[in-house]
Amino acid sequence: MTIHLIKRYKSFGGWTEFYEHHSSSTKTPMRFSIYRPPDTFQGTRPVLYWLSGLTCDESNFMQKSGVQSILSDLGIYLVAPDTSPRGCGYPDEESSWSIGSGAGFYLDALREPWNQSYKMYSYISTELPLIINDHFSVDPEKQSIMGHSMGGHGALIIGLRNQNFKSISAFSPICNPINSPWGQEAFKTYLGNEREQWDFYDTCQILKKEQCQKPMLVDYGLNDEFIEQGQLKIDQLIEICKKEQLNMTIRSFADYDHSYYFIASFIRDHILFHKKHLNF
Amino acid sequence: MTIHLIKRYKSFGGWTEFYEHHSSSTKTPMRFSIYRPPDTFQGTRPVLYWLSGLTCDESNFMQKSGVQSILSDLGIYLVAPDTSPRGCGYPDEESSWSIGSGAGFYLDALREPWNQSYKMYSYISTELPLIINDHFSVDPEKQSIMGHSMGGHGALIIGLRNQNFKSISAFSPICNPINSPWGQEAFKTYLGNEREQWDFYDTCQILKKEQCQKPMLVDYGLNDEFIEQGQLKIDQLIEICKKEQLNMTIRSFADYDHSYYFIASFIRDHILFHKKHLNF
Repeated sequence: MTIHLIKRYKSFGGWTEFYEHHSSSTKTPMRFSIYRPPDTFQGTRPVLYWLSGLTCDESNFMQKSGVQSILSDLGIYLVAPDTSPRGCGYPDEESSWSIGSGAGFYLDALREPWNQSYKMYSYISTELPLIINDHFSVDPEKQSIMGHSMGGHGALIIGLRNQNFKSISAFSPICNPINSPWGQEAFKTYLGNEREQWDFYDTCQILKKEQCQKPMLVDYGLNDEFIEQGQLKIDQLIEICKKEQLNMTIRSFADYDHSYYFIASFIRDHILFHKKHLNF
Repeated sequence: MTIHLIKRYKSFGGWTEFYEHHSSSTKTPMRFSIYRPPDTFQGTRPVLYWLSGLTCDESNFMQKSGVQSILSDLGIYLVAPDTSPRGCGYPDEESSWSIGSGAGFYLDALREPWNQSYKMYSYISTELPLIINDHFSVDPEKQSIMGHSMGGHGALIIGLRNQNFKSISAFSPICNPINSPWGQEAFKTYLGNEREQWDFYDTCQILKKEQCQKPMLVDYGLNDEFIEQGQLKIDQLIEICKKEQLNMTIRSFADYDHSYYFIASFIRDHILFHKKHLNF
């Protein structure tokens, strides 16, 4: 598998790099960004995966989170993939910001035409880590996953279902997409009407059915407009955590909203959380 | 003078806020962003002014620099104004990214129609600090100025010519606009052909004529494409500094370029430089 460097920027002694490659999961070109820590860190290093939210691509987190400062200090790689395939030519691919481009929802689509390329679950859980392990000096035993909003949903479902990720964290995640307007629209479009298929990609359903003691951290802002809209359903997550006695910390913050200003304010806590659970 | 809050985001315990107000300098609405440190800092606090480069507005630095983390720790206000008036309706206002909207060059225009509103020198050096002093709990005796590229030029000329700014710093500044393609195009458009008028807004000319011992810090990347294009003329600045024995530190960094990734990597150094010279 060849990957092509598109551009790179020296950042805090390391590099913020942007790559494109052909994906066997999506059958399309896919892009990701990666932070490479300074060369002073020898040997293989831990790697974190960041999944972005609706409308984002592989660049937003690298531009707006300020994460490189922390990754540089600690010697950690971070990979931020695009949020969907692009340029598939499907009729509804570009007509809405919550379906199609920028809105892959980290699932493997079942319905035509989406099932030809919208295979973000396979891409993120399996293909991308193999590519990263192959091309960068990362330790495959020290991988964790995190994300924001739709990407918080992705981090939770992929982190819960895949042993290679040792810890999970999320900002303002869509916790119960089968009961949220965004999730219902996406699952209907990509998966069809069979509710059984939906449950596989719903964090609350996974946590109800399976005993999971993986370390998890979830942060959200009390001024998040999407909580009021019923998109995130964090109340559902809190209820299940209490009932099932999960190893999850859920924190709320007065005045903070759904934006990157919120993410930037607490990203250090998330990186330190993963550092602790990756034991380095 | 009334200022209107457009939006605000909780950030690192403080607030990143965006305002609009009528400007008596430009006779148009103007926008600025401001970081307010957490309420735990009592009384008046120091304030830094950040001037952005070509194509930017009042949002880029707040989104991409990661500066709020440092301002929050130290209890400093930071103001980032837009880079020009907007919506004046002049024929060439939107036709080029290096003239008109987003390209005010921090001067007071002399030529029609620009001289009706393009008064960024007066706006930044006089009007805006008065507004900030009036509406926020800042210490007028503890003000410094910094910027990037066209905004580095702005920070240098305004900081050198105005006693209210105690220290100056710049990333990748246009140091000698009268001899650079961007500067020549802008000065011709806004000021006309009289070279005497140009010298007032040229850092190298100011430093040759006036003894200035204000503390100055300039950083640039050795992989900056605009150095090769002859836009920045940092070699001229270095020569004058040696000759005039100025109180200026000029640092170059291998591999870094002209981007916000460069700014983010060294913004902490700049804030600490101003902190030292503002004595707090």
